[in-house]
Amino acid sequence: MHTIDLNSDLGESFGAWSMGDDVALLGVVTSANIACGFHAGDPSTIRHTVLRAIAHNVAVGAHPSLPDLQGFGRRRMDVSPSDVYDLVLYQIGAVAAFARAGHGRLHHVKPHGALYHMAASDPAIARAIATATRDFDPDLVLYGLAGGAQAVAGEALGMAVAAEVFADRAYRRDGSLVPRGEPGAMIDAESRAVQQALELVRDRRVLSIDGVWVPVVADTICVHGDHPSAVSLARALRAAFEREGIGLRAC
Amino acid sequence: MHTIDLNSDLGESFGAWSMGDDVALLGVVTSANIACGFHAGDPSTIRHTVLRAIAHNVAVGAHPSLPDLQGFGRRRMDVSPSDVYDLVLYQIGAVAAFARAGHGRLHHVKPHGALYHMAASDPAIARAIATATRDFDPDLVLYGLAGGAQAVAGEALGMAVAAEVFADRAYRRDGSLVPRGEPGAMIDAESRAVQQALELVRDRRVLSIDGVWVPVVADTICVHGDHPSAVSLARALRAAFEREGIGLRAC
Amino acid sequence: MHTIDLNSDLGESFGAWSMGDDVALLGVVTSANIACGFHAGDPSTIRHTVLRAIAHNVAVGAHPSLPDLQGFGRRRMDVSPSDVYDLVLYQIGAVAAFARAGHGRLHHVKPHGALYHMAASDPAIARAIATATRDFDPDLVLYGLAGGAQAVAGEALGMAVAAEVFADRAYRRDGSLVPRGEPGAMIDAESRAVQQALELVRDRRVLSIDGVWVPVVADTICVHGDHPSAVSLARALRAAFEREGIGLRAC
Amino acid sequence: MHTIDLNSDLGESFGAWSMGDDVALLGVVTSANIACGFHAGDPSTIRHTVLRAIAHNVAVGAHPSLPDLQGFGRRRMDVSPSDVYDLVLYQIGAVAAFARAGHGRLHHVKPHGALYHMAASDPAIARAIATATRDFDPDLVLYGLAGGAQAVAGEALGMAVAAEVFADRAYRRDGSLVPRGEPGAMIDAESRAVQQALELVRDRRVLSIDGVWVPVVADTICVHGDHPSAVSLARALRAAFEREGIGLRAC
Repeated sequence: MHTIDLNSDLGESFGAWSMGDDVALLGVVTSANIACGFHAGDPSTIRHTVLRAIAHNVAVGAHPSLPDLQGFGRRRMDVSPSDVYDLVLYQIGAVAAFARAGHGRLHHVKPHGALYHMAASDPAIARAIATATRDFDPDLVLYGLAGGAQAVAGEALGMAVAAEVFADRAYRRDGSLVPRGEPGAMIDAESRAVQQALELVRDRRVLSIDGVWVPVVADTICVHGDHPSAVSLARALRAAFEREGIGLRAC
Repeated sequence: MHTIDLNSDLGESFGAWSMGDDVALLGVVTSANIACGFHAGDPSTIRHTVLRAIAHNVAVGAHPSLPDLQGFGRRRMDVSPSDVYDLVLYQIGAVAAFARAGHGRLHHVKPHGALYHMAASDPAIARAIATATRDFDPDLVLYGLAGGAQAVAGEALGMAVAAEVFADRAYRRDGSLVPRGEPGAMIDAESRAVQQALELVRDRRVLSIDGVWVPVVADTICVHGDHPSAVSLARALRAAFEREGIGLRAC
Repeated sequence: MHTIDLNSDLGESFGAWSMGDDVALLGVVTSANIACGFHAGDPSTIRHTVLRAIAHNVAVGAHPSLPDLQGFGRRRMDVSPSDVYDLVLYQIGAVAAFARAGHGRLHHVKPHGALYHMAASDPAIARAIATATRDFDPDLVLYGLAGGAQAVAGEALGMAVAAEVFADRAYRRDGSLVPRGEPGAMIDAESRAVQQALELVRDRRVLSIDGVWVPVVADTICVHGDHPSAVSLARALRAAFEREGIGLRAC
Repeated sequence: MHTIDLNSDLGESFGAWSMGDDVALLGVVTSANIACGFHAGDPSTIRHTVLRAIAHNVAVGAHPSLPDLQGFGRRRMDVSPSDVYDLVLYQIGAVAAFARAGHGRLHHVKPHGALYHMAASDPAIARAIATATRDFDPDLVLYGLAGGAQAVAGEALGMAVAAEVFADRAYRRDGSLVPRGEPGAMIDAESRAVQQALELVRDRRVLSIDGVWVPVVADTICVHGDHPSAVSLARALRAAFEREGIGLRAC
């Protein structure tokens, strides 16, 4: 049977500031990418999020970022592959500690924000992330943009990789995402996002922003936890997949 | 045969700033307490320090701190035991990841600076640190001030604990250290520090700053890595212990 | 005519995280205490908040904090008076720059969170804050807890001081606030908060949590910007003061 | 008479970590670019450095950076011009407060590290820095790479600008610096650095790394404060200028 993993970026509160409805999303998704402290996620937020994910039987993932609280990890920085190896390994270890203390285990790693996009297009950055993940635990699944350099780097190291697609982001004809901030980057209408999700997962293709069908492999689909209607969209996606007989489970 | 562990706080550089002669100290000590990023120690410094410690066959320890780069973790903060559990677990996990990636293992945990002193006198803070350490790995050794609350908390959880003494710090008659900044707190003369070390380790006692002999149990003795003559003192201590037939090895 | 200043802590968003309804509050209050980056308030948030305050003809104040983003400046730290002088002067300068660039001017300084409470009871900390404020600009008004050490320190330097009271916080019989987290610390019911505000401002007294009337001088009254019903409470206070013929204007 | 300003980046210590021999350099240079807290320079370091500069009659400048303590401000980040305006204004204000409290005044602004290089080549970033500086105080002097976009942006706003050259950095034939890390980027031999300085200041030209004479205008010359032989080089430059009858004074 065809299956899909429904993932969300969670644990993105910090200290007195909260973000996202993690409790509701954990009732819907099958895997959670948990902020590790560099773009969001203080240690207490990490603990609560990891323990809740374990309790909901949701796969626990680390969501490492460039060190940029103020920019929420969304600003590219000129970091070396060696820097990236180090900061990814640090963050994986920190989140994995909470999984271990909670009698769970870390399941996957998905880079966040600018680091995610750098890993999709820069083979050296992608390899640094894959190597840090493999050196921590070769059984971890590496999440990366479908068709991007992250998956290539993970496979070259013999790792399990998950090709990620987005219901609520527009694509360009080369398979990359239209950057946030550009017109049409975000697909706000839930019905259109659900339709795109089905095309991605069931039909293995997506209509690019300039009207070309692009073939895509989808192992996991992301619902942005900071989106105002994230919970509603997640539920709609889940219902649509169930209607189509597509099973939901972590990669 | 009587043995002692010679430990040092290492990896306390940060980015462009360096501190201490870690390479030289790793040739002398038997265990290393490695800064975890909250008072010092960016991810690259952690990696280098952990890998060097493994290469020198020096036991790798995590040295977690309150979050205070500017104050080098030396300023007490009003943190709850729950906060302390979370920030210690986070930091242990981060450093342990580098040990794991380097085919080594984490051996011990020693809180840093203000957190160390809080753990010596506040049972709730001590218990939070011990619980975080135990929840990560019950086989870790917990280092704490000889006679302080940290050892009591560790033993209550069935953990291995190491009573720590200081060659270069003056003691009060209750067994606590004279705080940095007070007159006479630091023992600068190497010969006096060596003498105090022998009294602590061989004779199991220390002469307090006001002239009273205080009984002390010593499992491990600290050489401060940020001390200008740290390397010289470490070598002198090692030589003195060897002369006295006291073996040197990690706890 | 009797007047009161209605102040609020504003600009407490940070990067991707938002807090409080600053736009609405700026339509109601007469002075704004603007976060300076150490507990909240990145530079862009500061600019937006300062410019909006100027546009609303609300007095611009700096709201300096201990350096503790994760704890929102609410955790006491063992800082020296010299440290406090330096971190307060730094933060005042940063916020004042935005006022100057916006053709406005800085009107007052009010320490935030733990630093506020330390300044209310510790004369050395209070003096450090007053001195930093005076050294920046002797015409600034220093806000501090009514009856606390901050006002005493400011007056000793010949500065204008404003005694601050709280509508939504319970008092102890010594005139200090019941600490957050203790039972009854917060007065959630709007009608009770309005009643306490009138007693404080009109009658110059407050009923302590254990039932004793305590005399109080009130120059300014605070509405917490992070309170869920801050806007409603601010409007209710303003209406109540107007009904009583008490004018509203900055100190 | 021909004059030159000899500037140095100072105040680059942070908390327990020290960098550079600021005290010695302040006896040699004519202007100081003082770190503002974003790449180095905690508030206490800023105060000490500003007060020492005033005491030595050295012109006080702000040296604002991208927010990157770990990377010492040397890593490019994808920041918007609006972000840059805000972070520069914030940092100028913070350092200027210490000058004001010390009965001195801010004289100039020179961006640091990656921000400096971005300002040399990106007109929008250069304009943001110039505007923030002008909005704070139109009489400030704006330092920027000789021939770069920063000077153009400052002049377009009617500001005084200072063209900066480097004795110890190699140039490319387009007048830009060979980036740190590339072969030959640093000129380590003091005699060669002095020779290049004289060619830059006296002869208004520099020999590029590939052997082409490039015309250069020099108002100010930088001695890197973090260079191990900074003090020796600064003294040698000063002596060479004096031998040539070139006066030393701030721009």
